[in-house]
Amino acid sequence: MDRRAEFGRWKAQSLGKADLSRKGSVDEDAVRVVQLLNAQEEFFTTSSCAGRILLLDASTSDSGIQKQHCCWLLVTHKPCVKDDVMAALKGATSNAVLKFEPFILHVQCQTLQDAQTLHSAAVASGFRNSGITVGKRGKTMLAVRSTHGLEVPLSHQGKLMVTEEYIEFLLTIANQKMEENKKRIERFYNCLQQAMERKAISSSHSETKEKNSLLCTHKNKRNQGKAHDPSITEDHEKELEGADGLGISAALFSEED
Amino acid sequence: MDRRAEFGRWKAQSLGKADLSRKGSVDEDAVRVVQLLNAQEEFFTTSSCAGRILLLDASTSDSGIQKQHCCWLLVTHKPCVKDDVMAALKGATSNAVLKFEPFILHVQCQTLQDAQTLHSAAVASGFRNSGITVGKRGKTMLAVRSTHGLEVPLSHQGKLMVTEEYIEFLLTIANQKMEENKKRIERFYNCLQQAMERKAISSSHSETKEKNSLLCTHKNKRNQGKAHDPSITEDHEKELEGADGLGISAALFSEED
Repeated sequence: MDRRAEFGRWKAQSLGKADLSRKGSVDEDAVRVVQLLNAQEEFFTTSSCAGRILLLDASTSDSGIQKQHCCWLLVTHKPCVKDDVMAALKGATSNAVLKFEPFILHVQCQTLQDAQTLHSAAVASGFRNSGITVGKRGKTMLAVRSTHGLEVPLSHQGKLMVTEEYIEFLLTIANQKMEENKKRIERFYNCLQQAMERKAISSSHSETKEKNSLLCTHKNKRNQGKAHDPSITEDHEKELEGADGLGISAALFSEED
Repeated sequence: MDRRAEFGRWKAQSLGKADLSRKGSVDEDAVRVVQLLNAQEEFFTTSSCAGRILLLDASTSDSGIQKQHCCWLLVTHKPCVKDDVMAALKGATSNAVLKFEPFILHVQCQTLQDAQTLHSAAVASGFRNSGITVGKRGKTMLAVRSTHGLEVPLSHQGKLMVTEEYIEFLLTIANQKMEENKKRIERFYNCLQQAMERKAISSSHSETKEKNSLLCTHKNKRNQGKAHDPSITEDHEKELEGADGLGISAALFSEED
């Protein structure tokens, strides 16, 4: 089976499966991006979370690692108020932790170049921890990830370690992060749409050129190698100036022009 | 210039440059990994941080995003005690935030397959947010990243929002995370060493085989495509069971056997 047909088979299988997440459906704020990608021949999404505020009650091992089966006291994809958290905290018997977890998306891509296109859009939209995985049987995945989180221990062995006033302060920050996260998803959607449009124009041009000249095909292949250089630096590496010689390209997707 | 020679030139240039980080040198806990990688023909590191506890004084914009030029009140790559943080907090006039930032490493790789090998080792060692970037002029980078952080707002417009007792509690957790982070770096070093040894054995076998038969070369090329499938799931996606059909392979690096 050729690569394209095999990818099509994977896509049909994956999109045909039941959604096994706790929620059982795609989060509202992620739906447009998920639908846009799944409408393209060269992509399909395998998991997503639009971003959420989460209150966990986690026993920790001696190493400080959360044990697998921690209890979820609260989860919301919407801004959160103090009273909800205070009520949920009544159920905490171990170590409650409040987290803001930003948008995350896994996308399987037909080719490495498709993954690069998506990666550039993700990084340019603020999802700077995104990265490609090339796996078994050539499966090429892009994970879209942000650096934009929050992880705050609130209680120790059932005892609340902070004041209500602090929780209110913390939720203001968490809600602001959620708002910014939504803007980034919106930016990512717009970036993707532009990329798809340019790709459509570019491939219709290439088809015409291929008919006219074999030399053009050769030139196109060379240009495919000149992908753009999305930055992979993290928040905590901003100060390592010139560290990896990579920078976000202002002229996104111009390799497809 | 062929790819191998070009990579060698990049490597010489990069390793010859001055270290422009604030610290000006590689962190102690990252040195062995950095040296091991730079001793291999197919890799060189471009930036690293072994992991640190950081106290920032950050003005935030309305969107909750930290402004670029926030002030560092404290940074340490060693376990941290309450008195140090309390003393540093006296300098806070805006919004102080305590962070634990885990190990991060950027490695430029000669080929995509080299990046995959490194990626597998990173994921198997606990650095599950690692990912590949393919950039301008075919530059292939691996970013080694962990999910294992902490980000805790402590003060608001100069006013401390938590108790000393809470800061002590928080530092216990931050120090545990730093300890666990060190173990992961150690595990990564061991994983890398094994991979290098296997690769050395495998390439000496391949050379012999290549001399004996062209068919073997063809077979090797086929096997190179069968890379392993590191998991890219994040902490916050553990519950999306079967989400992307990827799992950490127990038989790491066997593609090089």
